[in-house]
Amino acid sequence: MSQRKQKLNVAMIGSGFIARVHSNAFHQVGYFFKLPNDLHLKVICGRDRAKLEAAASQWGWEEVETDWRAIVGREDIQVIDIAVPNALHAPIAMAGAQAGKIVLCEKPLAMSLEEAESMARAVRHVPNLVWFNYRRVPAVAFAKRLIEEARIGQTFHYRATYLNQSGNDPTKGSGWRYRRAEAGSGAIGDLLSHSVDMALYLNGAITDLSAMTHAFAPGRDVDDAVILSVHFANGSIGSFEASRYAVGCRNRNTFEIHGSRGMLRFNLEDMNRLEFYDATEAPNLQAGRSLMVTGPDHPYAENFWKPGHIIGYEHTFIATLGDFLGALAREESFHPNFEDAALVQRVLDAAERSAVSRTWVTLN
Amino acid sequence: MSQRKQKLNVAMIGSGFIARVHSNAFHQVGYFFKLPNDLHLKVICGRDRAKLEAAASQWGWEEVETDWRAIVGREDIQVIDIAVPNALHAPIAMAGAQAGKIVLCEKPLAMSLEEAESMARAVRHVPNLVWFNYRRVPAVAFAKRLIEEARIGQTFHYRATYLNQSGNDPTKGSGWRYRRAEAGSGAIGDLLSHSVDMALYLNGAITDLSAMTHAFAPGRDVDDAVILSVHFANGSIGSFEASRYAVGCRNRNTFEIHGSRGMLRFNLEDMNRLEFYDATEAPNLQAGRSLMVTGPDHPYAENFWKPGHIIGYEHTFIATLGDFLGALAREESFHPNFEDAALVQRVLDAAERSAVSRTWVTLN
Amino acid sequence: MSQRKQKLNVAMIGSGFIARVHSNAFHQVGYFFKLPNDLHLKVICGRDRAKLEAAASQWGWEEVETDWRAIVGREDIQVIDIAVPNALHAPIAMAGAQAGKIVLCEKPLAMSLEEAESMARAVRHVPNLVWFNYRRVPAVAFAKRLIEEARIGQTFHYRATYLNQSGNDPTKGSGWRYRRAEAGSGAIGDLLSHSVDMALYLNGAITDLSAMTHAFAPGRDVDDAVILSVHFANGSIGSFEASRYAVGCRNRNTFEIHGSRGMLRFNLEDMNRLEFYDATEAPNLQAGRSLMVTGPDHPYAENFWKPGHIIGYEHTFIATLGDFLGALAREESFHPNFEDAALVQRVLDAAERSAVSRTWVTLN
Amino acid sequence: MSQRKQKLNVAMIGSGFIARVHSNAFHQVGYFFKLPNDLHLKVICGRDRAKLEAAASQWGWEEVETDWRAIVGREDIQVIDIAVPNALHAPIAMAGAQAGKIVLCEKPLAMSLEEAESMARAVRHVPNLVWFNYRRVPAVAFAKRLIEEARIGQTFHYRATYLNQSGNDPTKGSGWRYRRAEAGSGAIGDLLSHSVDMALYLNGAITDLSAMTHAFAPGRDVDDAVILSVHFANGSIGSFEASRYAVGCRNRNTFEIHGSRGMLRFNLEDMNRLEFYDATEAPNLQAGRSLMVTGPDHPYAENFWKPGHIIGYEHTFIATLGDFLGALAREESFHPNFEDAALVQRVLDAAERSAVSRTWVTLN
Repeated sequence: MSQRKQKLNVAMIGSGFIARVHSNAFHQVGYFFKLPNDLHLKVICGRDRAKLEAAASQWGWEEVETDWRAIVGREDIQVIDIAVPNALHAPIAMAGAQAGKIVLCEKPLAMSLEEAESMARAVRHVPNLVWFNYRRVPAVAFAKRLIEEARIGQTFHYRATYLNQSGNDPTKGSGWRYRRAEAGSGAIGDLLSHSVDMALYLNGAITDLSAMTHAFAPGRDVDDAVILSVHFANGSIGSFEASRYAVGCRNRNTFEIHGSRGMLRFNLEDMNRLEFYDATEAPNLQAGRSLMVTGPDHPYAENFWKPGHIIGYEHTFIATLGDFLGALAREESFHPNFEDAALVQRVLDAAERSAVSRTWVTLN
Repeated sequence: MSQRKQKLNVAMIGSGFIARVHSNAFHQVGYFFKLPNDLHLKVICGRDRAKLEAAASQWGWEEVETDWRAIVGREDIQVIDIAVPNALHAPIAMAGAQAGKIVLCEKPLAMSLEEAESMARAVRHVPNLVWFNYRRVPAVAFAKRLIEEARIGQTFHYRATYLNQSGNDPTKGSGWRYRRAEAGSGAIGDLLSHSVDMALYLNGAITDLSAMTHAFAPGRDVDDAVILSVHFANGSIGSFEASRYAVGCRNRNTFEIHGSRGMLRFNLEDMNRLEFYDATEAPNLQAGRSLMVTGPDHPYAENFWKPGHIIGYEHTFIATLGDFLGALAREESFHPNFEDAALVQRVLDAAERSAVSRTWVTLN
Repeated sequence: MSQRKQKLNVAMIGSGFIARVHSNAFHQVGYFFKLPNDLHLKVICGRDRAKLEAAASQWGWEEVETDWRAIVGREDIQVIDIAVPNALHAPIAMAGAQAGKIVLCEKPLAMSLEEAESMARAVRHVPNLVWFNYRRVPAVAFAKRLIEEARIGQTFHYRATYLNQSGNDPTKGSGWRYRRAEAGSGAIGDLLSHSVDMALYLNGAITDLSAMTHAFAPGRDVDDAVILSVHFANGSIGSFEASRYAVGCRNRNTFEIHGSRGMLRFNLEDMNRLEFYDATEAPNLQAGRSLMVTGPDHPYAENFWKPGHIIGYEHTFIATLGDFLGALAREESFHPNFEDAALVQRVLDAAERSAVSRTWVTLN
Repeated sequence: MSQRKQKLNVAMIGSGFIARVHSNAFHQVGYFFKLPNDLHLKVICGRDRAKLEAAASQWGWEEVETDWRAIVGREDIQVIDIAVPNALHAPIAMAGAQAGKIVLCEKPLAMSLEEAESMARAVRHVPNLVWFNYRRVPAVAFAKRLIEEARIGQTFHYRATYLNQSGNDPTKGSGWRYRRAEAGSGAIGDLLSHSVDMALYLNGAITDLSAMTHAFAPGRDVDDAVILSVHFANGSIGSFEASRYAVGCRNRNTFEIHGSRGMLRFNLEDMNRLEFYDATEAPNLQAGRSLMVTGPDHPYAENFWKPGHIIGYEHTFIATLGDFLGALAREESFHPNFEDAALVQRVLDAAERSAVSRTWVTLN
């Protein structure tokens, strides 16, 4: 059997924190998902050879390479995974797609809406994925299922936050994430993009929005925080808030959905839980219940451990990759892909324009 | 001693839920605060005599009256407490002030900013109070103290919600709170006003804002929900969200303040608690701590029970009244008064204008 | 109508913290319960006249008295409420009962089982009550209702704690609660008695038990902590733990019931909430739900405020008194009364004997 | 460098759930810990060849074997990891030790105290480990550090539970864990053993105890639940409760330590958190704080992800193995080893004897 599996040699472009998380996923996915493919961690690519060799040694990449263009040109590479600063996403992804590679890319997809849409067009003929990994938190996937089962009913409110205190840490140098030339934006691309992808996934399209952005750090050319008010196409209203100056928050990526039949609430800091309020119960028994989404009969319960035994951050990447490889084998389209990420980018773009113009912006 | 106490005969205008809460406070305040005055529950006034007599009998009002103008004209009444639909606040308060009465008024103060400012001018010469009772939740008063002690540092974010599901209850008739002619607004006056008073108290003035409002119920002429983005004069940014369609929320009146030195978080549903995150601790010991604000050394700890023994909703009214009567005896000004409430109304007014015009509105 | 109400003149014996709480209940009960009686706060009795006069003035007792025997002899007193150190419960209660008074007594009822049983016999002919007030926390009363509706099924486990840190407070003098001659026991009578009353109420009789007690403070002749393992008559097993040295706990009076159909969990520190786990739900929707027991359709919801508006510690006394007065008017027996409290005392007595003998003790 | 690493070929004995978790750890440990050794997943051994082959294929074991004695005899195996029913621990471990293998064994170590002590003696000359993995939850390791830094002070109370509902699941067949001949005991070995190991680790030796056990299921020859009262050598008292009939609990492995200077509280269901109450703070700032033990400056923070990014169940095994391999390379002794597990078994043995005799049992 296993001889017949499609061989996929993977090239990792990047060697920072997120490349480490991806590397782990490439190693782990086969233990938790029945793999239709035969994955190889072929080559890791970056600028600093010493750092690369350490990463390769620790994470089992066969080779190191310092020029991503060389990677794109190799016939023996089937998959390119992009985990570098945002400014490099487009050139690598587009070259990769042109060379017929499967392209996986970190979020946010692009530096601008135009770039995102070009990228989405460029990869249309190859399998592609954007690492909006939080769709695959089991609790989030279960929220999606409950919504599809109409357990929340007609949505009234969608509320999201992504709050951390990374920007306020005086011990942290100002890395690429704080420079417009490399990151494109600040909290908008870094944090809000996750919240927007989740909202589009769970609650559908946004029709118009008003945004404010703010930079607390003097001289910073990207936003530290962003607040959005929106209308959704389904008639609900929404608010989003993302900040790197939310002292007291480590990784507070939350959503909350209030509908005619119930409520859902999620916080990434307690990512194995989903709060569900069933408004169809007898009034005296209505309350938020703190579901531990570790099975039985929860998404990915068969893949990971057993009920009551929690999973961690990295499993969201493993599940994303597992689903992607499954779709690949079945020749189905996978979501979120570049097109989905371009839709996210439209919202981010509208947010930036609204913040500058101090007006409502319609997404058509 | 007690013979020398100033005698205060109180007239309650109104006999609904909130009049009941006020009646309780008039009875109770003397048990928890050393009263410099001699309070008498003299007369309760409303339109329905049978209902009034029941209320008078249950709550110990000596007399009933169906015409509030008769009350204003009585020499033996020193205090008028207004607990009727919003449209009646102004005529009663202004007549009361003109007759030299002490005037207490439910929130929101007025039907419009103009009305609120007229009222504030009209009562200037008499002691006055607006029942923004949540300032006197011990946990909120303690938050104020921590802020004043600079334990939060420079504020970055102020976030507030007031969410309930009252509007979505199909068993509820559409009372005066859902009609513009009597209420002036919907969630804005009913819920957002509390959040704004708290914000002005804890974080200072708002300089400009963008708002959206929404009515979910067809044909309703007031807002069911409102979302605000604001700048504060102290350089922080803020968001507010109030809704009567937040299914899953009973009484979620929250605020959250993120500053350079820490975070505070409060939820009225658990009103004996205040979460405090001290960002000056060693990083590995930083976390939200759930303070049970029932003493020792907490605001009002001497007035109510003992540490670990919680207080309820009504104590916020008792503490408000206790502080007011203390200020009265010391001839000090009390807050929140009509002027404070007019400042709140300026924000509500700006919110309504912004929502209609879909533009940012500056508060000068 | 009200002329026909039975007049009840109340004498309060005691003037400490708990007498204050009772005084409040006598004042408040008429506002929240339709009273069939006409209550008067007639006289407060204690040893220290100055302290008494202050209490009388603050809480509205008409007279003060320093000899409880004089009270018992008065024809114009119908109700005697005992809120003094435990050693005085028996003489006062028994004299009161002999004089035909209605007798209310603080917990624990007695200094010993023998005393408790004598007291229970002595008061049999008069209406009587023991202030195990926590049965009337709405969340506890709702737990009782859910149990009666078989929503928990067959009980497997009953787990209770009553943990505070009062004994470890170096600023606290060693009051009567820390001396055997006045208190009879330490944490056993002070804390465990509440847990045992709750358990007998919610889960029925205890058949046998093993106990350990411990005194952390050198030279103390009462227990600082007690741990119990028990069997209940209904086939379930149980554990109890009470301590005054549980640093970190303010007032952690909890119970937890695990049954074939569900779980209940309660903590007095968050007394407006009850956690309910419904094991008959679909497995993927099973979780503890945090019920806010403030209505609708919850015990006492009609008496106090409205859904989402919490009550405090004192309401448990008000509700106890309200129910007692209702039962009195309907000539029904009230629980918990002296007989119930004597059953509690049997468990406390067995616990002390077990701890001394280091053996299991059977309650027959 | 890496050529010089000691090569360790591992044999896994067992192929059930826990063998899967161990397999994962062998794969993962090198990604998170700098490995001084060169680990190979050589052979997996069990009774059912088809099941073995599936496991080998999924988890990358090179070979399968159905006779564990054959494994012991192989010269090319350096490590034997025992993940089979309890009755087989002793023969395999002792044969392995005799053959000079490094021996790793699942908990509970043995079927009886005698067996455990024989095993501990037998393995003394080889590196050995028992998989009490919860010591390496970062939050638990941090609790240990706080205790060592005297932040809790003199312990007064140690309270532990391990509650799940596995025994009450009517859909579950009665596997080996419910049969004395294979498991030795029920909740005692399965659950209580974890709690006891943690207690010995965090709070030191137990001197005497009283226990009760109970079987809810008719005809079951092992305990479903066990309750312990204990004295510790450090003067504190403790309670333990373990049950498979605690409906409503998925994996509630908790401890709580109350000391003169503070409190610690942990629940495995939220294993990335540790509650810490600092009783040396100003009284009005004392409260439980919910530490997210994901760094910075927390145990294992350098090994796994970054602050706010949680880890899952399996990381406790990875960290245990990482520490073991580090100790092995440094030729240091590792804990918990067979001797530690024999000390746990002494407590379990005393518990069983106490439950049968209904007396206190002293551990000398």
